[in-house]
Amino acid sequence: MPITESEVTTKRIKPRLPRGMRDFLPGEMLKREYVFNIVRDVFHLYGFEPLQTPVLELSETLMGKYGDEAESLMYGAYHKGSKDKDKLLLRYDLTVPLARVVAQHYNDIALPFKRYHIAPVWRGEKPQRGRYREFYQCDADIVGIPDMVADAEIVSLVVTILRRLNFPQFRVKINNRKLLTAIGQYSGLENGQLSDLYRSVDKFDKVGADGVGEELYNRGIDKDVIGRMMPLLQAHQPGLENLDHLEASLGHLEVAQEGLRELRELVTYIEAAGIPSEYYEFDFTMVRGLGYYTGPIFETVIIDTDYGSISGGGRYDNLIGLFRGESLPTTGASLGIERIIDLMDELDLYPAHINNTVVDVLVTVFGDETRHEAVKLTAELREAGIKTELYMQDRNLRRQLTYANRKGIPFVVILGTDEIEQGIVTLKQFNNGDEMKIARDELADTIHARLT
Amino acid sequence: MPITESEVTTKRIKPRLPRGMRDFLPGEMLKREYVFNIVRDVFHLYGFEPLQTPVLELSETLMGKYGDEAESLMYGAYHKGSKDKDKLLLRYDLTVPLARVVAQHYNDIALPFKRYHIAPVWRGEKPQRGRYREFYQCDADIVGIPDMVADAEIVSLVVTILRRLNFPQFRVKINNRKLLTAIGQYSGLENGQLSDLYRSVDKFDKVGADGVGEELYNRGIDKDVIGRMMPLLQAHQPGLENLDHLEASLGHLEVAQEGLRELRELVTYIEAAGIPSEYYEFDFTMVRGLGYYTGPIFETVIIDTDYGSISGGGRYDNLIGLFRGESLPTTGASLGIERIIDLMDELDLYPAHINNTVVDVLVTVFGDETRHEAVKLTAELREAGIKTELYMQDRNLRRQLTYANRKGIPFVVILGTDEIEQGIVTLKQFNNGDEMKIARDELADTIHARLT
Repeated sequence: MPITESEVTTKRIKPRLPRGMRDFLPGEMLKREYVFNIVRDVFHLYGFEPLQTPVLELSETLMGKYGDEAESLMYGAYHKGSKDKDKLLLRYDLTVPLARVVAQHYNDIALPFKRYHIAPVWRGEKPQRGRYREFYQCDADIVGIPDMVADAEIVSLVVTILRRLNFPQFRVKINNRKLLTAIGQYSGLENGQLSDLYRSVDKFDKVGADGVGEELYNRGIDKDVIGRMMPLLQAHQPGLENLDHLEASLGHLEVAQEGLRELRELVTYIEAAGIPSEYYEFDFTMVRGLGYYTGPIFETVIIDTDYGSISGGGRYDNLIGLFRGESLPTTGASLGIERIIDLMDELDLYPAHINNTVVDVLVTVFGDETRHEAVKLTAELREAGIKTELYMQDRNLRRQLTYANRKGIPFVVILGTDEIEQGIVTLKQFNNGDEMKIARDELADTIHARLT
Repeated sequence: MPITESEVTTKRIKPRLPRGMRDFLPGEMLKREYVFNIVRDVFHLYGFEPLQTPVLELSETLMGKYGDEAESLMYGAYHKGSKDKDKLLLRYDLTVPLARVVAQHYNDIALPFKRYHIAPVWRGEKPQRGRYREFYQCDADIVGIPDMVADAEIVSLVVTILRRLNFPQFRVKINNRKLLTAIGQYSGLENGQLSDLYRSVDKFDKVGADGVGEELYNRGIDKDVIGRMMPLLQAHQPGLENLDHLEASLGHLEVAQEGLRELRELVTYIEAAGIPSEYYEFDFTMVRGLGYYTGPIFETVIIDTDYGSISGGGRYDNLIGLFRGESLPTTGASLGIERIIDLMDELDLYPAHINNTVVDVLVTVFGDETRHEAVKLTAELREAGIKTELYMQDRNLRRQLTYANRKGIPFVVILGTDEIEQGIVTLKQFNNGDEMKIARDELADTIHARLT
């Protein structure tokens, strides 16, 4: 049944969005795509291949992987025809879906499986500036390689992306879960208290050493234990010396030896890949919140700001095992792409040529007399690969020029009755004010030459 | 808390997907992206700009727009912390979200608003071959132009996309809801029966003229009325003659005059845009299921197949009004992109150069002696813009070559201890069997030259 005019005036629905969700109008979209395209190009340069999974996953796939707090933030979904409203969830990240995919399609995947995934995820957090309930994640992971050469690829990938996006001083903080375990053992922490250690130390940047110490104490950890732990966590010497410093205290512990060997190897590969040392450092207070990490962990921050981390990741050798029944070594990183996009604006990192529109040329129209010829010219320009908009209203030239200028279209082609008669057009270029009459068959070449 | 080895072996979760949902592994993704990139390029060529809206919409936004059957197919969603499980829906198409966006952001949008939107939608239909519960739509619409020049842009856009994708014989069927109304009036149909007419005639391709006649009769429409209607619906003369034929019967009805004028204008613009006449025809049995169309409607089929339609659209001047309280002329088309992707395979339309991998070059590794040098060479190639994968396991050369060949990587760079000493590499090209030793500083240029 067609919608009638009377319905339009009587049934009005207020147009609005669910809380914490966003529309992206074209101007914003073009900026987002500038960022996504650079990220995608670097993923390809490093040999990562695209993967896509559905937005909806079975509850059993996601539950029990992220911890209780995360589970309370998830979105459930259900088919209207189904009685069971608890069977489906919107994905919460891209890592657990990867683990499911690898186990499910194990025979169709060649190892190592280097995949990237750029897609939205959903978390019902309290909306606030820079925090949304639907937001994009950009992940790259390497499945099947236990060697540190894979972790080095991940660190090098993140550094390359941020450099290509023109980020100024940033640094990848590197730690190893094995060293945290060793620091715990050395200090006399009981085995069951390791997750308390992670959770408290995770707040180092926010509450400082005293705050972390207090929290550990409140979690029932002995003052002596905390006293032994703190100097090691805060060790902060340049480069590999920081590892030597830890080794002096922890070298007798097997798990420490392994953790130190891994980080030393990791750094030799990062160096071989030509990543300048200003872009990474060891930081033993960096623990990453998530439970599934088993080896080296990474987190990237913009130096001397409080923007928080813009990328995180690490090695998680057991997650895929939950779906496969057998562990499979995996390492990867996730870019905080929404924060990166926000920072691109704040730090003014977009190049000048980023436009508000995809359109190169507007073709003018002056009433029915010229409209068919304008349609024809528009088709000619498009055929020549020029992104062309045909003006579709009846307005005077000034209005049409204003429209193009406001929208940021760089060229206007004026095609009046005079021009049609003479087989020419008037080409106007906004950025330098040039205006010239040229033969119609030279138009496409002229625009091409001036666009590049 | 870290996932332990014992959890991996005891807690195994069967990896599987919700019904009707799909993973896309890299090989498939690269094909899908080939299609999406062509579609996106043509959208840009025509001056359409990208828009993105959230997956979740408020129920009030979507309900009452698609009809009861559609509403029973929708997916509900809810925040785990919320008691109300009926407030949110996953989007069902991209058209109603567009209408909401235009009304909501009316002051931030310049009219005409030409937007495209490529994104998944959810419909809980019975899964079957070629029908999925999560699938992509590709829409392009023009908001703000009542003139047929806009509808002609849409038809021309669809034809251009399908030609660029190499689709063989296809045809855009064109009709006008106003002519259907006129045929109803002429035949003596009561006003309230118009939606019965749409619903029955929509099945013309499936059940034929007799089937449609029978269904109309079963819906309580008089045999005489059906008898007057059928010859007009089935009028099938070449080009504009088909309109002349209808005019002879319907010319006295105002709504017919308007519908005929619109289609005649539409065709003059399609012709001016240089679209060959083999690509479109009038078909008065084509009605489009959805209720919101008000003027010209389009549907594209592959000729002489039963693949069904691969694109549909039309003018819907009142839909935005439901959110805005005032009508806003709008026309557009949706590509049946999943069916198009399936057909690309069936009709063998992908170009030969489509690869299973993004990777151009594999750099080999032979143990710890060569690994650091291989990491360095990999970084050099990437710096030169070559998509490079570093081999990350310890295997013999044959295994590494087999890996590259199976994956479809066109080049392998062999870097053994001999090569490192001499400052050279061995470059192997799979498609012609070439194998050559070259200086390392000439490697990137050589690969670039052979890639294009």
